Amino acid sequence: MVKVRLHEITIDCADVLRVATFWAGLLGGEPYEPMPGWLRLGSPSGGGPMLNFQPVPEPKQGKARVHLDLLTDDLHATVSRVVALGGRTTGERHDYGEGAVVVLADPEGTEFCMVAYRS
Amino acid sequence: MVKVRLHEITIDCADVLRVATFWAGLLGGEPYEPMPGWLRLGSPSGGGPMLNFQPVPEPKQGKARVHLDLLTDDLHATVSRVVALGGRTTGERHDYGEGAVVVLADPEGTEFCMVAYRS
Repeated sequence: MVKVRLHEITIDCADVLRVATFWAGLLGGEPYEPMPGWLRLGSPSGGGPMLNFQPVPEPKQGKARVHLDLLTDDLHATVSRVVALGGRTTGERHDYGEGAVVVLADPEGTEFCMVAYRS
Repeated sequence: MVKVRLHEITIDCADVLRVATFWAGLLGGEPYEPMPGWLRLGSPSGGGPMLNFQPVPEPKQGKARVHLDLLTDDLHATVSRVVALGGRTTGERHDYGEGAVVVLADPEGTEFCMVAYRS
């Protein structure tokens, strides 16, 4: 049986350095250049997939069909940090029994969710 | 310092069961329903992020701005399996020093890459 596993997640970017700097500021780690023009952010905690930032000529269109869900232990502080790093809030928030989810976007508008469970 | 980490990856779907069944066939594991109408695929090898399949009303538009890169030890067999599971090839393939990357799509056309390193 062939083994297939998740290896990396690639985000298309107009400005690779800008987007990689944002994600490194949020997740930790130091981006490096695996191929000319690309940047890669290793999994800071090890084990998880790496993030690739790939230069593309086309601008973002419509809502991202695939998005990342990040987990934080302090939703308020993390949303502030996202904004300080050049990201933005979308105004969308869902509260449910277990916790809350806030929809955010990186500096190029790529949407992601920040999840916090009730402690 | 607040800790933020990658928790899940969410794929928007018109037909949640169809898409989740495809990804489970490729990665292993058994999808379960964490919320009504959603399906979730736990990380079979543990540690990595889970995949969520979220029902959305809108069809896919344009190329996915965020995509998954999977790693296989047998590119030919894996591409055949993708097609057998209802996915498709896009015809795009890149060969480079370390190995090869083939661009594929799931049953709803969400693009992903299959990477194989030279052994």
